[in-house]
Amino acid sequence: MQTMLPSYRDIETAQVRIAGRVHRTPVLTSSGVDTLSGAQVYFKCENFQKVGAFKYRGATNAVMCLTEELASHGVATHSSGNHAAALALAARTRGIPCFVAMPRKAPVPKIEAVRHYGAEITFCEPTLAAREETLNGIVSRTGATFIHPYDNFNVICGQGTAAREFLEDVPGLEILLVPVGGGGLLSGSSISAKALRKGIRVIGCEPANADDAFRSFQSGTLIPSMNPRTIADGLLTSLSERTFAIIREHVDEILTVPEASIISAMRLIWQRMKIIIEPSSAVPAAVLLDYPEKFSGRNIGIIISGGNCDLLNLPFRES
Amino acid sequence: MQTMLPSYRDIETAQVRIAGRVHRTPVLTSSGVDTLSGAQVYFKCENFQKVGAFKYRGATNAVMCLTEELASHGVATHSSGNHAAALALAARTRGIPCFVAMPRKAPVPKIEAVRHYGAEITFCEPTLAAREETLNGIVSRTGATFIHPYDNFNVICGQGTAAREFLEDVPGLEILLVPVGGGGLLSGSSISAKALRKGIRVIGCEPANADDAFRSFQSGTLIPSMNPRTIADGLLTSLSERTFAIIREHVDEILTVPEASIISAMRLIWQRMKIIIEPSSAVPAAVLLDYPEKFSGRNIGIIISGGNCDLLNLPFRES
Repeated sequence: MQTMLPSYRDIETAQVRIAGRVHRTPVLTSSGVDTLSGAQVYFKCENFQKVGAFKYRGATNAVMCLTEELASHGVATHSSGNHAAALALAARTRGIPCFVAMPRKAPVPKIEAVRHYGAEITFCEPTLAAREETLNGIVSRTGATFIHPYDNFNVICGQGTAAREFLEDVPGLEILLVPVGGGGLLSGSSISAKALRKGIRVIGCEPANADDAFRSFQSGTLIPSMNPRTIADGLLTSLSERTFAIIREHVDEILTVPEASIISAMRLIWQRMKIIIEPSSAVPAAVLLDYPEKFSGRNIGIIISGGNCDLLNLPFRES
Repeated sequence: MQTMLPSYRDIETAQVRIAGRVHRTPVLTSSGVDTLSGAQVYFKCENFQKVGAFKYRGATNAVMCLTEELASHGVATHSSGNHAAALALAARTRGIPCFVAMPRKAPVPKIEAVRHYGAEITFCEPTLAAREETLNGIVSRTGATFIHPYDNFNVICGQGTAAREFLEDVPGLEILLVPVGGGGLLSGSSISAKALRKGIRVIGCEPANADDAFRSFQSGTLIPSMNPRTIADGLLTSLSERTFAIIREHVDEILTVPEASIISAMRLIWQRMKIIIEPSSAVPAAVLLDYPEKFSGRNIGIIISGGNCDLLNLPFRES
């Protein structure tokens, strides 16, 4: 079966659909970061998006695409991170139920966020098999529509709207740095960027400790991560066939960075820019600083994917 | 001797003088904060100002006001906080020397910030007498001009430019909440606010543990703080005759908040708005939440004074 891949036109349609429902987030700059990197760097701040992450774009688009009949049964997912919170709020905004399968041991702040936005949580064991079984149970019981965190046409279209806004605001971007986990943001961003600016380079940024996209991209074959361990908890997931196909077509390069670079870039952004970014969002900034020869003298765009951190458990240590 | 008090015209002149040298900082809103407070709240984000604090406005204005002859001998101060860093950068930008008397035991990040901006530091004992003696020594040795952190006409004029921008961007503000330590920001802000919008209420926000402005305002007599202890380390200083005179004329009320409210407001802003604010900046937000009957249903402006925090020593604890 051929997987359906979004075109730029689909992203334009999504943008119209979600306009007024999602924030048009600001683009910030920092003379400190420019000096350190030798580049002119622009940050698209999706940490200021509703629920604190770009995920609200895709979730909103997916929820808004449902027919009245489908929508009335609600939506469901098994993400334990930002996607679950985003889907919960998008569902509540449309006035429909949201069901989330979550591992019993998920961090308390994440459980609270999902509950805060009004979703019904079903706890399960922390294995993929248990999550899928629990989700299937929910779907057959309720008739809810499963909205995958990234392997979903409408989710990818929604995520692609951030890069579209970014290039509207800063048309001179030469290189776009985007974090890659499951590939929803990277695939959507790459479709928008290549459509809006032919010569732009799109680079996926990945923790070395969860480098399935890097290895898949190098080998031309989808290679899922086995037991990835990284502080960038939003990037533990592996590409799907769909996101991989888009990335192979539109992305120029995947670059990886070690954990120490991610923590140090995160601290730099907090200290210099006074904005809170989550570890996953520090990965492109770490790439910027770890590969200066690729970026010096250029106009660089970085998508800050989110700002949801556990303030009681930060990674900063005496240096 | 009559102390010279700035007029709104002086603030307008300062704004022209420092335009292009300081950031015009953004105004942010948060639907989460609006819901919690029952008000429509606008945040003027001086944490995004150069050196991470509004202090750069006053320091720049003071440095730009010096004649060539005076400027050539440099500037000096004995603040150990944001003013010293601000004065150092303002001096470097004009190409003149900056001398800072700092207590030997000042926190390392503060010493590093001042040094980073190129000031020459002279260490002294942590008493006011030692600081003043050291500063006097610097001034007689170098001929540098002493720029007081707040008891200075040009510094107050510079600080007043933030409120002016704020009211230009959000003309409908009904109440302005400003932190008060030495009173430079509050006095400058109150002059701007009352000139631009006659009916506006200006409220000084102070830690209960450093409530000299509250007590002075209530009694009509300047009462300095004795050994204040608060997490809001930018608000330990006491009003001067000059700032007190302005505050008596233009400020409507001083409200105080306990330490627990400051910490909890700081955490709320970090979590909901994804911006880093220093403890002193959380004081107006704490006032907003501690006195809901005063603010519900109104358009409230809060000046976020700065974002310089020690990330290795944050006050957040399990709640």
